[in-house]
Amino acid sequence: MSEVYAARRARLRERCQAGGSASALVTRPANVRYLAGPAPQDTVLLLGKREDVLVCAGPSDDRPSAAGGRPDEALRRHILSGPGGDPAVAAADLAQAQGADSLALEEHHLTVARHRAVRSVAPRLRLADLGGAVEQLRVVKDEEEISCLRIGAEIADQALGELLESILVGRTERHLALELERRLVDHGADGPAFPTSVAAGPNAGRRGHRPTDRRVEEGDFLSVCLGATYRGYRCEIGRTFVIGTSPADWQIELYDLVFAAQRAGRESLVPGAAYRDVDRAARQVLDSAGYTQGLPPLTGHGVGLEIDEDPQLTPAAMGKLDACVPVTVEPGVHLPGRGGVRIDDTLVVRPEADGGPELLTITTKELLAL
Amino acid sequence: MSEVYAARRARLRERCQAGGSASALVTRPANVRYLAGPAPQDTVLLLGKREDVLVCAGPSDDRPSAAGGRPDEALRRHILSGPGGDPAVAAADLAQAQGADSLALEEHHLTVARHRAVRSVAPRLRLADLGGAVEQLRVVKDEEEISCLRIGAEIADQALGELLESILVGRTERHLALELERRLVDHGADGPAFPTSVAAGPNAGRRGHRPTDRRVEEGDFLSVCLGATYRGYRCEIGRTFVIGTSPADWQIELYDLVFAAQRAGRESLVPGAAYRDVDRAARQVLDSAGYTQGLPPLTGHGVGLEIDEDPQLTPAAMGKLDACVPVTVEPGVHLPGRGGVRIDDTLVVRPEADGGPELLTITTKELLAL
Repeated sequence: MSEVYAARRARLRERCQAGGSASALVTRPANVRYLAGPAPQDTVLLLGKREDVLVCAGPSDDRPSAAGGRPDEALRRHILSGPGGDPAVAAADLAQAQGADSLALEEHHLTVARHRAVRSVAPRLRLADLGGAVEQLRVVKDEEEISCLRIGAEIADQALGELLESILVGRTERHLALELERRLVDHGADGPAFPTSVAAGPNAGRRGHRPTDRRVEEGDFLSVCLGATYRGYRCEIGRTFVIGTSPADWQIELYDLVFAAQRAGRESLVPGAAYRDVDRAARQVLDSAGYTQGLPPLTGHGVGLEIDEDPQLTPAAMGKLDACVPVTVEPGVHLPGRGGVRIDDTLVVRPEADGGPELLTITTKELLAL
Repeated sequence: MSEVYAARRARLRERCQAGGSASALVTRPANVRYLAGPAPQDTVLLLGKREDVLVCAGPSDDRPSAAGGRPDEALRRHILSGPGGDPAVAAADLAQAQGADSLALEEHHLTVARHRAVRSVAPRLRLADLGGAVEQLRVVKDEEEISCLRIGAEIADQALGELLESILVGRTERHLALELERRLVDHGADGPAFPTSVAAGPNAGRRGHRPTDRRVEEGDFLSVCLGATYRGYRCEIGRTFVIGTSPADWQIELYDLVFAAQRAGRESLVPGAAYRDVDRAARQVLDSAGYTQGLPPLTGHGVGLEIDEDPQLTPAAMGKLDACVPVTVEPGVHLPGRGGVRIDDTLVVRPEADGGPELLTITTKELLAL
């Protein structure tokens, strides 16, 4: 892996130098992990003029370390001695000691207070904005990253499949969510990719619903959204079911509609497609059926080391899909008081020649009556 | 509750006006919750010149809402129409529209990029630093807050007690952690207060250890640290056990030492005690036994709406304890390769006349052989 991290840092360095900064300070945890591997909490990475340095807040034995291994052994480590020190400040000090004249910072992550502390310790450094440079590098995944997402998706499919075989009526959203998270770990996940959402009855179809003590009842819609983290990579799957023997007509109609919207979104995932066109493909199916109110602000988003990455598939998004970009497609409709439907897959954009979008989450999307 | 929130906002307003700002923008989630009640994700609070306003990122139906109720109904809501907008920017706009000339911001929470966006939308506002004003208000708890912590501690005690009655040998750290989290919810917690830590054998005694697939074995030290969130309030308990019939002599010695250090810390919790003296009371017991290496940077910390709040009980901490401040006392020793011991309680500082420190986490601290 060490070569992979080194190659990523080399690409970032090129961008920095193009931007006029010989040095960069990476503070956002997922970005540090992308460039240096799993590191203890609060670790920052200095892309130095002479040398790259991983600056850790304390002896790692005493610090929770990111799951999934160790940081790049090829990197020099600098460990703060005392407690309470800010690794970003120490890293800026090192950058100045290396003779850098400018340092690019992640101004979208660094707080105003930390930025001030950095400036005060390194007054000779010209502080620039690294912006989302690392996030941009992270958008297109290599096959190693995609295989982590694929395994995570298999784990999520397994956990969901097992839940469907168990008794659901009478159990609370909270308990179902916890059981799903336990099963994710049973099957080898580092942990859940995000707080598992289980939404029954009137809650069903709400994006990001936090599980409550609402019990599953006959006739409910039940929507479930979960994901596994595997070696740091996070995937997502969402399905909606009906509880009981036979769905009501309105449930079948609503389900078919959301399914059609989700399929339209999936089918629009081709290299070169504009983000907004993917969103429109799904959204217009719902619009044309009169569901203009209460639609989620996005149809999908990128996934990777974070569960919500670029690209954002929204009406206003700029940019086009590349091959090897994993995204979710997750349209939904929620009818206040009645519940609703969400269907959510994680797919990888692939060229037509390679068979088109690769579906990672393969649990059936038929409307199951449980 | 509405009066409670209003009273807290009134106290903050006094501090702001003393600091020369008629308006303040609170963005840190726990601070927003403290001043306005449970609000949807990304909600910010404007303490306005004419009126206080809760600014939400979107229709709350579409946004995960903090567990434990609704925001203060007495507050005016301003909901952003489009997606992707920053409530902090919208709030600054409102502040300017109210005729404020200055606005105090949480520079320790707001990123450089958001701060710039705020400045650009409200150029006529003088932007000041609110600093940790809200965090300072949060240090001393009212009895309502303490009762939430007390209930959370009871829940954590129950979950831990049940685990101790089950078979442990052969099970992995991960599974024990998940079972504890399930039991927390079984007993009415909103969820875990932080990622449950279960550490067996050589991992035992490591602060913030992330559970692994290491299985519990005969002769292990097993240290467990968990907490419940109840109505948003987070407590913490940590215990260390030995697995098997009879602990080894080194285990008994190490346990007795950490127990003595933890007791010394607890007994030093009196109103007016300096934070650093509480730390020293516990630390010197370990120091005098020769354990100067690898001691955790802190002996304890405040708890409340966040699991790690002020005060920090460290050698360098400034300040003195007040009554009604809940803190943890959690010294530990970890011997690389062999494991170690941590003992962690949540207590509330009380005057001698009221019986001294109130122990919230009452699970026995005898060395149990399981």
